[in-house]
Amino acid sequence: MGPRYDTISLLTDYGYADEFVGVLHAVARSIAPHATVLDIAHEIAPHDVRAGGLTLLRAAEYLPPGVVVAVVDPGVGTERRAIAVEVGEGMSVLVGPDNGLLAPAVSMCGGAGRVVELTSTDHRLPAPGATFAGRDIFVPAAAHLCNGVDLAELGPPIDPDSLLPAVLPITRSEDDGLHAEVLWVDRYGNAQLNVDPAELDAMVGCEEVVTLRFDGSVRTATRAIAYASLGPGRVGLVTDSYGLLSICLERASAADELRIAPGTPVVLSAPQ
Amino acid sequence: MGPRYDTISLLTDYGYADEFVGVLHAVARSIAPHATVLDIAHEIAPHDVRAGGLTLLRAAEYLPPGVVVAVVDPGVGTERRAIAVEVGEGMSVLVGPDNGLLAPAVSMCGGAGRVVELTSTDHRLPAPGATFAGRDIFVPAAAHLCNGVDLAELGPPIDPDSLLPAVLPITRSEDDGLHAEVLWVDRYGNAQLNVDPAELDAMVGCEEVVTLRFDGSVRTATRAIAYASLGPGRVGLVTDSYGLLSICLERASAADELRIAPGTPVVLSAPQ
Amino acid sequence: MGPRYDTISLLTDYGYADEFVGVLHAVARSIAPHATVLDIAHEIAPHDVRAGGLTLLRAAEYLPPGVVVAVVDPGVGTERRAIAVEVGEGMSVLVGPDNGLLAPAVSMCGGAGRVVELTSTDHRLPAPGATFAGRDIFVPAAAHLCNGVDLAELGPPIDPDSLLPAVLPITRSEDDGLHAEVLWVDRYGNAQLNVDPAELDAMVGCEEVVTLRFDGSVRTATRAIAYASLGPGRVGLVTDSYGLLSICLERASAADELRIAPGTPVVLSAPQ
Repeated sequence: MGPRYDTISLLTDYGYADEFVGVLHAVARSIAPHATVLDIAHEIAPHDVRAGGLTLLRAAEYLPPGVVVAVVDPGVGTERRAIAVEVGEGMSVLVGPDNGLLAPAVSMCGGAGRVVELTSTDHRLPAPGATFAGRDIFVPAAAHLCNGVDLAELGPPIDPDSLLPAVLPITRSEDDGLHAEVLWVDRYGNAQLNVDPAELDAMVGCEEVVTLRFDGSVRTATRAIAYASLGPGRVGLVTDSYGLLSICLERASAADELRIAPGTPVVLSAPQ
Repeated sequence: MGPRYDTISLLTDYGYADEFVGVLHAVARSIAPHATVLDIAHEIAPHDVRAGGLTLLRAAEYLPPGVVVAVVDPGVGTERRAIAVEVGEGMSVLVGPDNGLLAPAVSMCGGAGRVVELTSTDHRLPAPGATFAGRDIFVPAAAHLCNGVDLAELGPPIDPDSLLPAVLPITRSEDDGLHAEVLWVDRYGNAQLNVDPAELDAMVGCEEVVTLRFDGSVRTATRAIAYASLGPGRVGLVTDSYGLLSICLERASAADELRIAPGTPVVLSAPQ
Repeated sequence: MGPRYDTISLLTDYGYADEFVGVLHAVARSIAPHATVLDIAHEIAPHDVRAGGLTLLRAAEYLPPGVVVAVVDPGVGTERRAIAVEVGEGMSVLVGPDNGLLAPAVSMCGGAGRVVELTSTDHRLPAPGATFAGRDIFVPAAAHLCNGVDLAELGPPIDPDSLLPAVLPITRSEDDGLHAEVLWVDRYGNAQLNVDPAELDAMVGCEEVVTLRFDGSVRTATRAIAYASLGPGRVGLVTDSYGLLSICLERASAADELRIAPGTPVVLSAPQ
């Protein structure tokens, strides 16, 4: 018997319009009634593996030990592998498709320990079609892990180096500034950049204002601790709750106002 | 004392914009703190009893034993009856309005056992208005069942044959093809038909392509196992996770592209 | 040790698009694994403190004893205080920003008992930024309360009279009728007024029809028990599930049809 986990955390692009998420809960409870099911997020844009991987990364350090199931899986039913990845010396297991979705969180947790391909038909639900792997493969595997089934029983081992990596954008320092990218726009319209505040400090020093260039626009942003200290209409650069710089406005959507979205390139520089 | 259930599964058209679903959880926990509350789906279109009944039907076989509360109830506060229906020899009880919503799931579970009308004022919440039966009648009844109250205590027995049936569309084989209907469009835009793959096999044989006619359009669809094996822009007919044929596109919404919706008639035939 | 609570109820404007709500669950479970987390509502419009306070008020009387965390917090990271308020002689504790959000529910529960400002760094999460107080301050405080930490350990006492009050609209009887206001429009488009049915009875007597004036429009509304007894297209005044009058239509959105929204002034009078 392996360890007995008691939490299954779920992240998917299933949305709440249909019964998909509810059925995942039902399957988990039917197989492992002692486990608590925790919803991380289910409104990832359909098929957006990168957004799903970043969301999982942001949440990962706050999750309780246990099994995490992540499903953003445009290749469902094809030859992409279904995998389970131990991290933290077995403290947690990440379960999902081998399409890069799990990779950022696996890295953040210190890298993969044992990895298996989920091929055991004893630990799947029989399924009339191949399109709902969350219900038929991933959550059943997670629930069996909670019941003490060892990872090795779920399928053959995989070389961790063979897993599909995540492709996360990195910043570049160039003569005209720090070349960054919008990673995420949250509900409030705050646009998180892939920039650590220390990285900006190194470039622009103790300047309180920074020039932002994107899509042909040039805007001046003020560095601030809190959204509400910006004042109406002033573009701000706030260190967000994940420790990255975020472009924001007080009580308004910076993303809507500035027309920026995940993937938008942004160059930050000292004011001219 | 009746059986002591430990799961209350909920399906409603309440949505997540308001506190309605939260209040159902609160009422369940206040009356039966040992019960786990499982959300099947709450974003059924307002008043859409047919969509609610189909969603419950799809989820039903995956639900753990217990009490299921379903509320899509445009007639709330009128003379439509509030009912509780035992299925599976008492393994589960379905609770909701007698408006056809529960009927497909009851049939799938082998038909109704004991049925009562929920009239017992001892097992309701006092309510200032008659518009929130989920909070005041249905969930309290479910929670009392979880506490071991017998079905018979909740109200007088009803003849199961008097329950309002569901009206589900059936297919018709005609000279020009198999006349079917779209049952459901999911988040990804896949359009589920009321057609079993074997039914189509019987009509068109081992053809890999099928002609679809709907709303004056004619399209050719390719049968496939997985969405991602279709290739960009090709209309597919995939056996979905519930064992029915679904019209789909790879990484795009077939419903948006073809302008089909629940209720759209579709005729399937061998290619001409 | 203080009392040991076992429920944390959550209300926020975080929405379900991001992982914010999931992270609150994760933090609660990491600190107080025995506690059940109950979602009241998370789709409060961003920064809408009044709507959040009214939603909490509507839900409050149905919540099980325990800790309630409410976060609609446009001033996060500024000098607005983070507070915890005992109500019902310690049966429950309300946790959130001191911006009027908690005030209607505190009043409904009989007023504040002990109040503290949440300043104890021992009961917070370390945070790289100051923008996610739900994760870093409010839910950790709630979870520690569930673990038996006494309120007094979370920070210094505050004078309850110093808390920011809620500003709820009250009705005025004038010569031309009862001046009221739309408090809330629910998913179905029903528009709740700040009017008790008895208040209207006192003004118009036993009339079955009432004249509504708003934004230059005049409409006649029929008083009714249930939405479905109105008949198609007829504007109704129904005593809703919270005991207030609500403007509604059968199976249609009164708010859309009449173009009314939260905050719209409405004058009710006997038909002329």
